[in-house]
Amino acid sequence: MSVVLGPNQYGKAENRVVRIYRDTARHEIRDLNVSTSLRGDFAAAHTHGDQSRVLPTDTQKNTAFAFAKEKGIVSPEEYALVLGAHFLDAAEATTAARVAVEEYAWDRIPVGPQGHDHAFMRRGGDTRTTVVTVEGRGDDRRTWVVSGLQDLVVLKSTGSEFIGFLKDSYTTLPEAQDRILATSLVARWRYEESAVGSTEWNTAFDDIRRILLETFATTYSRALQESLYAMGRAALEAHAEVAEIWFSAPNKHHFLVDLSPFGVENPGEVFIAADRPYGLIEATVTRDDASDPGNAWLATPGFC
Amino acid sequence: MSVVLGPNQYGKAENRVVRIYRDTARHEIRDLNVSTSLRGDFAAAHTHGDQSRVLPTDTQKNTAFAFAKEKGIVSPEEYALVLGAHFLDAAEATTAARVAVEEYAWDRIPVGPQGHDHAFMRRGGDTRTTVVTVEGRGDDRRTWVVSGLQDLVVLKSTGSEFIGFLKDSYTTLPEAQDRILATSLVARWRYEESAVGSTEWNTAFDDIRRILLETFATTYSRALQESLYAMGRAALEAHAEVAEIWFSAPNKHHFLVDLSPFGVENPGEVFIAADRPYGLIEATVTRDDASDPGNAWLATPGFC
Amino acid sequence: MSVVLGPNQYGKAENRVVRIYRDTARHEIRDLNVSTSLRGDFAAAHTHGDQSRVLPTDTQKNTAFAFAKEKGIVSPEEYALVLGAHFLDAAEATTAARVAVEEYAWDRIPVGPQGHDHAFMRRGGDTRTTVVTVEGRGDDRRTWVVSGLQDLVVLKSTGSEFIGFLKDSYTTLPEAQDRILATSLVARWRYEESAVGSTEWNTAFDDIRRILLETFATTYSRALQESLYAMGRAALEAHAEVAEIWFSAPNKHHFLVDLSPFGVENPGEVFIAADRPYGLIEATVTRDDASDPGNAWLATPGFC
Amino acid sequence: MSVVLGPNQYGKAENRVVRIYRDTARHEIRDLNVSTSLRGDFAAAHTHGDQSRVLPTDTQKNTAFAFAKEKGIVSPEEYALVLGAHFLDAAEATTAARVAVEEYAWDRIPVGPQGHDHAFMRRGGDTRTTVVTVEGRGDDRRTWVVSGLQDLVVLKSTGSEFIGFLKDSYTTLPEAQDRILATSLVARWRYEESAVGSTEWNTAFDDIRRILLETFATTYSRALQESLYAMGRAALEAHAEVAEIWFSAPNKHHFLVDLSPFGVENPGEVFIAADRPYGLIEATVTRDDASDPGNAWLATPGFC
Repeated sequence: MSVVLGPNQYGKAENRVVRIYRDTARHEIRDLNVSTSLRGDFAAAHTHGDQSRVLPTDTQKNTAFAFAKEKGIVSPEEYALVLGAHFLDAAEATTAARVAVEEYAWDRIPVGPQGHDHAFMRRGGDTRTTVVTVEGRGDDRRTWVVSGLQDLVVLKSTGSEFIGFLKDSYTTLPEAQDRILATSLVARWRYEESAVGSTEWNTAFDDIRRILLETFATTYSRALQESLYAMGRAALEAHAEVAEIWFSAPNKHHFLVDLSPFGVENPGEVFIAADRPYGLIEATVTRDDASDPGNAWLATPGFC
Repeated sequence: MSVVLGPNQYGKAENRVVRIYRDTARHEIRDLNVSTSLRGDFAAAHTHGDQSRVLPTDTQKNTAFAFAKEKGIVSPEEYALVLGAHFLDAAEATTAARVAVEEYAWDRIPVGPQGHDHAFMRRGGDTRTTVVTVEGRGDDRRTWVVSGLQDLVVLKSTGSEFIGFLKDSYTTLPEAQDRILATSLVARWRYEESAVGSTEWNTAFDDIRRILLETFATTYSRALQESLYAMGRAALEAHAEVAEIWFSAPNKHHFLVDLSPFGVENPGEVFIAADRPYGLIEATVTRDDASDPGNAWLATPGFC
Repeated sequence: MSVVLGPNQYGKAENRVVRIYRDTARHEIRDLNVSTSLRGDFAAAHTHGDQSRVLPTDTQKNTAFAFAKEKGIVSPEEYALVLGAHFLDAAEATTAARVAVEEYAWDRIPVGPQGHDHAFMRRGGDTRTTVVTVEGRGDDRRTWVVSGLQDLVVLKSTGSEFIGFLKDSYTTLPEAQDRILATSLVARWRYEESAVGSTEWNTAFDDIRRILLETFATTYSRALQESLYAMGRAALEAHAEVAEIWFSAPNKHHFLVDLSPFGVENPGEVFIAADRPYGLIEATVTRDDASDPGNAWLATPGFC
Repeated sequence: MSVVLGPNQYGKAENRVVRIYRDTARHEIRDLNVSTSLRGDFAAAHTHGDQSRVLPTDTQKNTAFAFAKEKGIVSPEEYALVLGAHFLDAAEATTAARVAVEEYAWDRIPVGPQGHDHAFMRRGGDTRTTVVTVEGRGDDRRTWVVSGLQDLVVLKSTGSEFIGFLKDSYTTLPEAQDRILATSLVARWRYEESAVGSTEWNTAFDDIRRILLETFATTYSRALQESLYAMGRAALEAHAEVAEIWFSAPNKHHFLVDLSPFGVENPGEVFIAADRPYGLIEATVTRDDASDPGNAWLATPGFC
């Protein structure tokens, strides 16, 4: 036998790119965390320390910042698409470039009816994400966009049950007719490649996020799985450009506190929010005619 | 010489108390992180392992949850005041009880014009806090309320300079006529004891938070210190019931990226957000006629 | 088109299982973080809220704790293998069970030549990991063990260079003849299925960890890639039972501080340790005759 | 009334200073996290934005790094003493300088009997700390050193009980004759000012840490309070140069898991390690003839 190099990639992670648009007195801000990585024939660097084909991660960083000015940031997706395509031009040995972006939202500080021109407060709550992979050259070019959100913490104080489950000799959980359902959602959806040129990324993101939230709120839940599936289906039905959607949803348990030792009733009013352990549901909802994902999910945090 | 016990306190930290109000179909949620601690004559527990005067931290936890139902949570301050006073009754050796609360805000998921009745999303952004100390019995009773907020991330994309500073042989920083100013603010303000019975806590919190934000936005800043002082002064001038306000403000540096090696101009448009090190400004703004703080700040994270 | 359920799994994450062996006065401790998940035909739970085939995550938790006593914890791998196989028996719809374990090491507090019998201090440093997947029944049974470590922070203060790299118009990095090389290593190695019955897990872990450390120390590094490859090769050459090894290695940059403005020379003596951004190298070293990995890496954090 | 500036300080936090000693082939490493802050008459900066007396935090950072070379790092205490004294010389308005240091320990990677010359692994476990305050000039100079450690996680698997405690109507905790006792210790001890010139800091630290560990291990514990007091007393009795010692000790609960529903006995063998809530004990052990602490503890995280 002999030892060989297997799959590999390298890049610069967590470039904190902040772009201010200040062409008028009313500034705009885009606040990104950008991670780039390159795949290709970099074996010599691994086996012989030969860096001649390696575009340094420091150069990748420089490019990420320079492109924030040269190309601008209209949406994380457009920025990532341009940056990813560039790296294939810049380094011949590169066969694919992946650009992963997190975007933190800011609101204007409320001063006057329109908010302040140049003072902002970070919104908090969920973070918008995208993972763009650009692979191949010329006619072989493939371009995948997997966008999503993370840390979207949602809760229903009723309209959730968990009954009729399988029981074995290690089961002690009582059935719950009415419980709190809460999760800190991660969702990632893959756009069809055919839609990459025509999708309006910001609009699509806002609408899919709205659908996920509304469906979570209005679906009676017999399990977190059922809520997730309903959310995914609603998103796919409304957005033909989306091929599939993946969820990772920790069940943030809120346990009803037993107040009976103190002579106090507790009909679903006082809960302890627990940290660990937590249920963890991961599921993909897809179309039966979705295109092949190719390498869209390669090295993307999530199901693969 | 002999070894003796010095100052001490004990309690239960980070009780994650979630209270649902479900008296009508339109639920309400209060989501708290509650830490209690008792001070007093507990020396025997330390020196001889004698627990007979020690109310267990587990009992403190039980009480925190039971009171969420028995007394309710109209505001973190009212809840903490009742809980703190209770502990002095419950454990004779206790001379003072401190109840520290963080509150996480939730919004209704937007469904229909009023939002959903029982589905919520965590707001994110800053957290509301209070540290209540109840000390003494009968006529010697003292009650301090130090409320505030933390993790309020704000940024000005212009309207900030840093010039005219002291220079020594280790100074390399160039003067900045126009820079990004950003911080993740912690503020804690002490209410006058005389106002404890009459203050409407939720209204006061909302208004002081509004004043801090507006003042940050509208103050031209020659240093983060100047912004903080203006914010504190504005809060004190509007709220006679507040004796003093303390700020801890990391200067979240946004460094202008030098794009000139790539032939790209960067007139205040592309920044790198840095993690460490960071400037850290801590300051108190107070009234010249403020009452003595007594033990209001004892063991409260902050300046003491 | 119609919407369908894609890949999914569910389980209980982060069960903090602590097992004390106290059969003699000299206690032993095993301290685990256990996450279980099941895959199979659970579509009805997603599409119709039907839980009749779903073994609750709470039951999985109970089993994880009960097995710590019933089966014991000789090694994380043995414990995970037994637990994973059990879940396929317990829930008919399950086609595969994955058990991921992190183990925290403890040392005896040094009292006397052998250390204390029942007082321990947590070692800190790196964490041992394993991800065991048990799939199929009867003759179709497959069993994969992917063990490793994480958070192993290592540094070389010399013996590292970075020169001869590709340059483009965005490259500003100077070549470095002598630099600090540091990383916080994650390594995961897959054992051959054929070796699952015969491998002594604790011994194998200790030896592979030793090899990784020694090779890092003694390899002159022309790039972090070269160090990783050498480490992987050394492990594979010494351990025929290992099929492949995957590394994720953030390049924890230590930048030489320019002290020349203060008239102070700095020949590789004072560095600033940077947080973000950081280079990130991910690579697999494998045998050319390694068996097919099957689902060994499915939903395992890492390259997939 | 009028609004005035109260107590304030400013500085640069979390300078990650790494110093390599490479005078011989056998390198040494000191790895620090340094936070400096200045107090004094900086009111004009707050009230009028006048920076003329303000030594920038960037200059403080430069000095922290330059001194790592110019003065060296024999111990965190010596480094902090020199740096703190410098700032009073550098900025006339400064009345006191505080330098807080965390030090991360590294071990040599084991290669050969002495370990490798220039390859290291981070030790993990607890972190050494010091907070040095230098105040005043000339004959009024005061110098306080508060050293310690944090994140020292210790556990006793027997030799701990909790019985005989006070009970009220909210008490449900059963008495425990034999339990796990575990904590993540923070300890800070103040050296007498008179000992500042003569204390050998590294030796003192090592010995006090040893005493704390040994006493924790060998003391039968009727409460965490009793363990802490014994530890503090032992340190004070052995180290006349220490005036007082403060502990913050979260009671890291390990709850015995009820396995009886599965017909499994659990005589102190399987525990769940809980995250929140946790008991929190804070206590100071002092000499009855200790000197006045002055401002030694001002703005030091801990009891004040």
